[in-house]
Amino acid sequence: MTKADKPCLEVCLSPALLHLYDTNDAVVVIIDIFRATSTITAALHNGAKDVIPVASVSECIAIGAATPGSVTGGERDGKVAEGLQHGNSPLEYPRSFIEGKSLVLTTTNGTRLLHMVEGAAEIIIGSFLNLSAICDYLLSQNKNVLLGCASWKDRFNLEDTLFAGAVFSRIQHAFHTNCDAARGAKHLYDSSGGSNFIEFLKDSSHYHRLSKFGLEHDMEYCVTPDLHPVVPKLVGDRIIIV
Amino acid sequence: MTKADKPCLEVCLSPALLHLYDTNDAVVVIIDIFRATSTITAALHNGAKDVIPVASVSECIAIGAATPGSVTGGERDGKVAEGLQHGNSPLEYPRSFIEGKSLVLTTTNGTRLLHMVEGAAEIIIGSFLNLSAICDYLLSQNKNVLLGCASWKDRFNLEDTLFAGAVFSRIQHAFHTNCDAARGAKHLYDSSGGSNFIEFLKDSSHYHRLSKFGLEHDMEYCVTPDLHPVVPKLVGDRIIIV
Repeated sequence: MTKADKPCLEVCLSPALLHLYDTNDAVVVIIDIFRATSTITAALHNGAKDVIPVASVSECIAIGAATPGSVTGGERDGKVAEGLQHGNSPLEYPRSFIEGKSLVLTTTNGTRLLHMVEGAAEIIIGSFLNLSAICDYLLSQNKNVLLGCASWKDRFNLEDTLFAGAVFSRIQHAFHTNCDAARGAKHLYDSSGGSNFIEFLKDSSHYHRLSKFGLEHDMEYCVTPDLHPVVPKLVGDRIIIV
Repeated sequence: MTKADKPCLEVCLSPALLHLYDTNDAVVVIIDIFRATSTITAALHNGAKDVIPVASVSECIAIGAATPGSVTGGERDGKVAEGLQHGNSPLEYPRSFIEGKSLVLTTTNGTRLLHMVEGAAEIIIGSFLNLSAICDYLLSQNKNVLLGCASWKDRFNLEDTLFAGAVFSRIQHAFHTNCDAARGAKHLYDSSGGSNFIEFLKDSSHYHRLSKFGLEHDMEYCVTPDLHPVVPKLVGDRIIIV
């Protein structure tokens, strides 16, 4: 396959930049490492029937009430949001608890980006927990790829970009890329040494913020590669394993 | 001085993210390495009376005609724009040519960002050509700093971010920073090895684009530190040396 034949890979560093990218017929990977996409991946691999991502707490409560066999989850400021049953930690959804249930999950950044994407061939959910599965899937599709960082209130963040760099680093040979954000993400990934991501991220905005809530162990879990090797995909308003 | 007393330093990676930052009473550094801010810095150090940055070619022609002792400069697609006299290369404005003249310069990304900033204490012009002068100036001001990358049509670019990382790397000790974009820029700068920037940038969107126009030597000049140690500042609608 010549360079010209290869599909295109790009990285979007913030939802506020999404309009610069053509998502038509592309595979869009939603990335919200701390912690929406990590939690969705873990819950589905642990047997959740599906995950319903919603923007607001009130919507989460309403959809939870209307969905038999569901649990509601979501946090605001590091605590279970009022009116919801559970939080936004992948560790809260082991198989013994979540198997066969629908998880109605409200998160801010990840859900927002997911709902902003238009015209994509597919929207899939990426995290370190399913890094290799995502890479294998992207290689198998032969379509343009946009790696979309959910960021933090539209601000660039290190952990989502680091993951984008990890993906690009592994699959760039199969894509044509002229995207400085992808190159920058790869430089960041190379800076991290490609392992011990949590050490690398200890000086990051999100780590500082979440460690105030005692979530260090959570974050360490979220950057552990390949614990949950599945490819969650948005189908209608639900995320399921394909 | 305690950490809490230190002013704040942040990095804005694209004009499309500028609204996320508080520029009130801050010193904002406009960064457009290839090539607006490099050209402005060189022309002023070489004796230009002032630089008048304008957005459009027609405005450039009109203001040039109305300004005695001025020259007009600007490019579109790597060539001198129709109706203008000169291009957008720092090498076109040696002392023998530009001394005592006003340079009316139209650029796309740099000028646009410069006009978007509101409420700043000062807007200054940064490039590798005046890297140390900018750092010294920022250290002397004891004010919040925003390093603003002009980027390319709102897309993240490597060269502006690399410069932001170079500045942050040198002055971070004097600032409080909780900004992942600043951390990411510093990681990028560290990846570059802190010298031979042109080698590092050879795989970047802008290098690929501008080298098609034969501008390799121009770009190499633009990433040479401290050839023009001045601090250009926007005063009214003109940029002068302070």
